[in-house]
Amino acid sequence: MIIMKSEATREEVSNVVREIKKYGLKADVSKGEYRTVIGLVGDESRVDFSRLATLPGVKEAMMVETPYKLISKEYSKRFEGQDEYRQIQVGNVCIGGPDLVFIAGPCSLESKPQIFKIAEAVKKAGAHILRGGIFKPRSSVHSFQGLGANGREGAEEALRWLYEAGKKFEMPVITEVRGETHIDLVAEYADIIQIGARNMYDQDLLTNVARKGKPILFKRHFGAGIDEFLSFAEYIAAEGNKDIILCERGILPIGKGKNYTRYTFDVTAVPVIQKETFLPILADPSHATGRRDLIFNMSCAAIAAGASGLMVETHYNPSEAIVDAQQTITPDELKEVIDACQKIHQVLAR
Amino acid sequence: MIIMKSEATREEVSNVVREIKKYGLKADVSKGEYRTVIGLVGDESRVDFSRLATLPGVKEAMMVETPYKLISKEYSKRFEGQDEYRQIQVGNVCIGGPDLVFIAGPCSLESKPQIFKIAEAVKKAGAHILRGGIFKPRSSVHSFQGLGANGREGAEEALRWLYEAGKKFEMPVITEVRGETHIDLVAEYADIIQIGARNMYDQDLLTNVARKGKPILFKRHFGAGIDEFLSFAEYIAAEGNKDIILCERGILPIGKGKNYTRYTFDVTAVPVIQKETFLPILADPSHATGRRDLIFNMSCAAIAAGASGLMVETHYNPSEAIVDAQQTITPDELKEVIDACQKIHQVLAR
Amino acid sequence: MIIMKSEATREEVSNVVREIKKYGLKADVSKGEYRTVIGLVGDESRVDFSRLATLPGVKEAMMVETPYKLISKEYSKRFEGQDEYRQIQVGNVCIGGPDLVFIAGPCSLESKPQIFKIAEAVKKAGAHILRGGIFKPRSSVHSFQGLGANGREGAEEALRWLYEAGKKFEMPVITEVRGETHIDLVAEYADIIQIGARNMYDQDLLTNVARKGKPILFKRHFGAGIDEFLSFAEYIAAEGNKDIILCERGILPIGKGKNYTRYTFDVTAVPVIQKETFLPILADPSHATGRRDLIFNMSCAAIAAGASGLMVETHYNPSEAIVDAQQTITPDELKEVIDACQKIHQVLAR
Amino acid sequence: MIIMKSEATREEVSNVVREIKKYGLKADVSKGEYRTVIGLVGDESRVDFSRLATLPGVKEAMMVETPYKLISKEYSKRFEGQDEYRQIQVGNVCIGGPDLVFIAGPCSLESKPQIFKIAEAVKKAGAHILRGGIFKPRSSVHSFQGLGANGREGAEEALRWLYEAGKKFEMPVITEVRGETHIDLVAEYADIIQIGARNMYDQDLLTNVARKGKPILFKRHFGAGIDEFLSFAEYIAAEGNKDIILCERGILPIGKGKNYTRYTFDVTAVPVIQKETFLPILADPSHATGRRDLIFNMSCAAIAAGASGLMVETHYNPSEAIVDAQQTITPDELKEVIDACQKIHQVLAR
Repeated sequence: MIIMKSEATREEVSNVVREIKKYGLKADVSKGEYRTVIGLVGDESRVDFSRLATLPGVKEAMMVETPYKLISKEYSKRFEGQDEYRQIQVGNVCIGGPDLVFIAGPCSLESKPQIFKIAEAVKKAGAHILRGGIFKPRSSVHSFQGLGANGREGAEEALRWLYEAGKKFEMPVITEVRGETHIDLVAEYADIIQIGARNMYDQDLLTNVARKGKPILFKRHFGAGIDEFLSFAEYIAAEGNKDIILCERGILPIGKGKNYTRYTFDVTAVPVIQKETFLPILADPSHATGRRDLIFNMSCAAIAAGASGLMVETHYNPSEAIVDAQQTITPDELKEVIDACQKIHQVLAR
Repeated sequence: MIIMKSEATREEVSNVVREIKKYGLKADVSKGEYRTVIGLVGDESRVDFSRLATLPGVKEAMMVETPYKLISKEYSKRFEGQDEYRQIQVGNVCIGGPDLVFIAGPCSLESKPQIFKIAEAVKKAGAHILRGGIFKPRSSVHSFQGLGANGREGAEEALRWLYEAGKKFEMPVITEVRGETHIDLVAEYADIIQIGARNMYDQDLLTNVARKGKPILFKRHFGAGIDEFLSFAEYIAAEGNKDIILCERGILPIGKGKNYTRYTFDVTAVPVIQKETFLPILADPSHATGRRDLIFNMSCAAIAAGASGLMVETHYNPSEAIVDAQQTITPDELKEVIDACQKIHQVLAR
Repeated sequence: MIIMKSEATREEVSNVVREIKKYGLKADVSKGEYRTVIGLVGDESRVDFSRLATLPGVKEAMMVETPYKLISKEYSKRFEGQDEYRQIQVGNVCIGGPDLVFIAGPCSLESKPQIFKIAEAVKKAGAHILRGGIFKPRSSVHSFQGLGANGREGAEEALRWLYEAGKKFEMPVITEVRGETHIDLVAEYADIIQIGARNMYDQDLLTNVARKGKPILFKRHFGAGIDEFLSFAEYIAAEGNKDIILCERGILPIGKGKNYTRYTFDVTAVPVIQKETFLPILADPSHATGRRDLIFNMSCAAIAAGASGLMVETHYNPSEAIVDAQQTITPDELKEVIDACQKIHQVLAR
Repeated sequence: MIIMKSEATREEVSNVVREIKKYGLKADVSKGEYRTVIGLVGDESRVDFSRLATLPGVKEAMMVETPYKLISKEYSKRFEGQDEYRQIQVGNVCIGGPDLVFIAGPCSLESKPQIFKIAEAVKKAGAHILRGGIFKPRSSVHSFQGLGANGREGAEEALRWLYEAGKKFEMPVITEVRGETHIDLVAEYADIIQIGARNMYDQDLLTNVARKGKPILFKRHFGAGIDEFLSFAEYIAAEGNKDIILCERGILPIGKGKNYTRYTFDVTAVPVIQKETFLPILADPSHATGRRDLIFNMSCAAIAAGASGLMVETHYNPSEAIVDAQQTITPDELKEVIDACQKIHQVLAR
């Protein structure tokens, strides 16, 4: 971490950045109101900080040992003088702001009429962002892999349906990218790119998606501790993209008996993460519980715990959904969820 | 499970009970408005149900294979014709009824002035029941074991302080029993007997506490699945005592990195358990998180998820508390928690 | 921890013990060849060590902060000058010595002929100690609870069968105690008292069993970390009974899918525990895997990892066993297991 | 699954394959001695099996519902008539054959002299295959990312060093691929391509690596159940590449206390997986334990459990290793490990 003197010139900053690059690291330059701070990204053990401290314009040079610093609240507070949460604006929607945000739509996009019909219904129910899976990560190669599996044309067609449905019903759209080769295609149509739980550890994917510069919804892997989750979000921030929306979606259950839910919904992760980072955090009660009859209660719980919004799988006819039928709710049920969450948000005056 | 004919006589019921006992099992007799149902308690594999079905007054005799049936919602609905949750009245407090219930007090009772001062404060903050640990289960034999460790007299003195504090501030009191030899003593002074997480599997303790006939607060072990938790609650019900208040207090965290919380708070267990059993369920955010700065958010979450109330460790000076200082809140903080929870309860109109 | 001077007299030692008791703690006196060390048992935070250091005969007085010190290897090495594992002699069998020890028998004792028939068979197969459950901890109150459930007489009769079978076939016997009220009875007949996994956290039971002075086989709870397991073993040692045989028997599985085994067999716990404590450690592949077809491989693994022996559920007709049929092997299979383990033990020259 | 008649012609087989492709699925054709079996790969729910059954040459057509069938033992036995484990020949080494196989080398390749020096030493110690990480998956973007991070040229240079070291000391070489863009490069130099634990869920990577046709060492993710692990291996097999070497390397620890090991080494996974699939399985005690002082015991345990070999991180000066120093052993220690494992393998006569 390099803190520049308040009177440091632009050339002095550039010079420090150049020196950092000589060590094979990247520089994260934050220009605050009163001073500029330069975060080092990469293996700091190679760096001679005492030498950097002697460069013109440098006030202080120190090693900060934590796997996630660029996204940490402490870093933001100490170095950028900001104590607030990041607000991420996507079209007409602000994530992490004073209002709750609801993302809804089918697990899998199945057809053009399906996505238009659902888009209309979730919009009416109070949702702000439309989701729809096209490249589906599935545990079994023998399961439906999403329309993205139908070659580039099939994938693009499905993406266009999603895009058009969003346009028509005035909602930004989000969809998941699963492999590096589809990043460009997805980035062309999606307002927010989702990196799913199963790809959380896939550094090359993270880095390359980050470089598209679009907001990213980043889901926690079910086997990841909170520190690991944030450390991998740091890979995105390290590319200079801090428009990261975190999402808790359940961790591995323990126990030898019957599993009553698909995962253990780590609701506590919401306030814990809010104390660690300035990034907004949403929750996904659909995947976390895997049970339609638990969505209402656990949505309320997540909002009461402080989540900035929810991602909820919705379908006009859940039992018809090809994927995740047992955890999908109807638009009417979504409306009940949103109404209850809004009420909780109001009485807690957040 | 034996369902008697609606016109079955008292003698016929007694006769069936006698026959059940011959198999070495116990009988749980439920007299409903229209009919009587007799649950079998014990190893049903020894029983000849076709023979029982031929006894006079018997309408149906069948084996119900589930580790928890006496406390199951299905049993209650199908056989007792009741679809509601059990309400457990303790003094002036009703647990599981329309109102939320808050249990508060110190982790460990330390002195008479301490418990009186805390009792007054938590009452004022809105608590309904006073807690105070006297026999403390501790991981280390080298830690403070509670005043109960000071012989019978020390233990009884501490119990009396708790009892008197409850009397003075008009709150029923609850304290934990840790070993079989203290059951009688604890039952003499406590309005509700707590069986702690570490003793959840201790069948002999469960059975013997159940026989005292007092309401029991039964905490889930951190390694227990929900089915195991309910199966052990069934040991209490099997003694004819269904005044069981369940309590979720955190399960084992997974992961190789840093633990941000003491346990993983399984908030979802609240609605899941409500779908399985008619017993009321509370939550303990203090033990579940182990962090004072998370109590507010996670209390709101538990109530939003549907809990009938909370158990919260409270001390006028948390940092002075001998045990669990880092997870204990002040009475002022407790008031904020209770106020927020009441608001959520209201807007959800439960 | 108090280290006495080498020339300290018996009176000086007694005096220190007296002073320790004044603080409400117990003293664990270890007379080594050259010096005496006194461990403090209980809440050391109350103790003024600088004052103890000035007592006559005291060389050093210090606080040792670890939840398990009386059973720790470091304590034994530093203070008792012993670097070896404790060998526990039970009749003609030495546990923790140079030879492997095999405990075998049925999960549940069912009848006199059953236990005699099995005793003969396991002896022939190479087993050294006979096991047989009489008080069975079961998850469901509706399952067979062991012959111990048949009142005091039934329990005593079953214990006598076990005892006599052991006598006849020259094997010490081991059985589990589940509740405090049965300790005396079990201690009368058993050579080794087992405290099962479900009772690992039951401090009052531990303390009271420890006081009987007999060797104790202490099983790890499936939700217990190694530090917790050892911390509870310390409760036994704190009563002056260090004849503790530890036993690993599986921890909670994680994961959302199918469980292929009943528990996760934590084989690594064997060498880890051997680095922490001087107590011998056995493994129980029967409960850890829950699968008969895995016993051979996992027995070999546990011995290769360094276990001092095994506890294996054996029955002449596994499918007939009332409890744990699917994880029980035949005496012939036991012989194969023992032979393979002995070979591994030999080639590793342990 | 389509079973062809024994007299089915090549044209009939081709015709069936064509029909399968019309449904958007792939066909896995296995020509046995007596008959040909065609596995369907992909979403079978779209397929009309009754129609396929009427095609000329078809004896039987049925749906097999399991997430891993192409690699399952049952499939291999029932349809290919083979009851044996797959032996994978790589240069002069046979994996899964009668002899144990040891893979050794540094966690990270650091320089040309380093890899040559280590190659010589591990060869002398008895290793058969040389490992060396070039693209390193790391939890923190601020840690050393491997020489692969130095652009394409740096990566290729490092790969060439590994390749040459293998050539010189007559060992096939293995290295990990982390992102899709490096597959071609890695495939050019490596004899076996490793897919690491963190990439286990990365379907697009799996599919694309599989298509290179080279043997793949496929490591289990620390959060993956065995069924999930095998279901993702099926993604590789679905590309027609069954040269898959599975590797157990530790799963997430549970528990709230101290972690004595980095992961929980799931030794039991070895025999469990051998009952499910015909693929060979190795174990990696280095990552599983994270502790140098446990490698010997746990290597012995894994071999005793039935593993076909081990992967062990080795460095001439472990404390100098940039990555994973605390779990790396010396070549001398490796020799002890290999010698002990060979002895166990011999006495068990596997």
